[in-house]
Amino acid sequence: MPKPIEFHFDFSSPYSYLASEQIEALAARHGRTVDYKPVLLGAVFKASGGAPLTEQYGPKASYAKRDFERSARFAGVRYKQPSRFPIGSVTAKRSVVWLQQHQPEQVAPFIHAVYRAFFVDDRDISDAAVVSDIAREVGIDPDALASGVQQPEVKERLRALVDHAIAAGIFGAPTIIVDGEPFWGNDRIPQIERWLEKGAF
Amino acid sequence: MPKPIEFHFDFSSPYSYLASEQIEALAARHGRTVDYKPVLLGAVFKASGGAPLTEQYGPKASYAKRDFERSARFAGVRYKQPSRFPIGSVTAKRSVVWLQQHQPEQVAPFIHAVYRAFFVDDRDISDAAVVSDIAREVGIDPDALASGVQQPEVKERLRALVDHAIAAGIFGAPTIIVDGEPFWGNDRIPQIERWLEKGAF
Repeated sequence: MPKPIEFHFDFSSPYSYLASEQIEALAARHGRTVDYKPVLLGAVFKASGGAPLTEQYGPKASYAKRDFERSARFAGVRYKQPSRFPIGSVTAKRSVVWLQQHQPEQVAPFIHAVYRAFFVDDRDISDAAVVSDIAREVGIDPDALASGVQQPEVKERLRALVDHAIAAGIFGAPTIIVDGEPFWGNDRIPQIERWLEKGAF
Repeated sequence: MPKPIEFHFDFSSPYSYLASEQIEALAARHGRTVDYKPVLLGAVFKASGGAPLTEQYGPKASYAKRDFERSARFAGVRYKQPSRFPIGSVTAKRSVVWLQQHQPEQVAPFIHAVYRAFFVDDRDISDAAVVSDIAREVGIDPDALASGVQQPEVKERLRALVDHAIAAGIFGAPTIIVDGEPFWGNDRIPQIERWLEKGAF
């Protein structure tokens, strides 16, 4: 069996969102599945000395916003720069962890719904009540989820994912790992496609 | 007449090199020419707070080197990480400026020769004698060039290009501008191609 594609992502990352809208079809074209790995970019940036693009040097921040929107149009993905950005999303990420353990078939629909709530509909995904609403909209029992994300082992599992990502040298999102080969950024999707199609190059 | 494509570059930038190997064919496919604009990335980084990728956080620097080589293979461009990196290249850039004023037909051949000397043959392009050798190899009179790059107006013109680039919001290389639209990075070439083919999107 070919290994799943590791998709390390943060809900507050525009390029992770753009890649999330393409990665499953890409994986499926090559007989792969996607293993979603939430990370906390804030913790990653603390380790790496990085910062959100929109908080960097003025012209770079302006370019980044222009490029988020243009790259979305290029990929045919709906995008609207959120009014709250960047945003914390620890509840949404713990939700992913809980779903992976209890309702794995809901992981991908939930991730897509959270991303679209943030990057299309400008909803406040840092708010646990909004996360509950999104869960309900995709058919997840919001009460079970709300108590699930409070479990110590769920919190611990997310912390461990973040620690593992930092130890593995992840410094940004999305980081997409194919058979051990890391690709950073939505713009590496063409390289990933070739890697899956023809093997290492 | 459609406007030339502005290609802002530094000789010490791997992604500028990769783009330089593709930009003329890309421009020609769409009836455009390339206007080469040397910048001094050191001065740009001073303004922007940036740094060469290979001098950033360890895992990011390691990834960058891996990505330079993989992106070169992906593009079908020869590449060998230079042993001296990053490198100063002010003489080579002043040479570009002088050639633009006196032998414009030699600009592109000289740029490609300098890039390949550095990124394929690991030559020390910071050395004025090496720049002279490269000039000779592409049929430029090295003595005329060596005295040309000493002219105050050539030095001033390069400084003005750098100041203009910073004032225009350029923060990295390559920055490729098509009809006023900036694209940062070799990995934006597919977007540039669509822009040239179908217009703004």
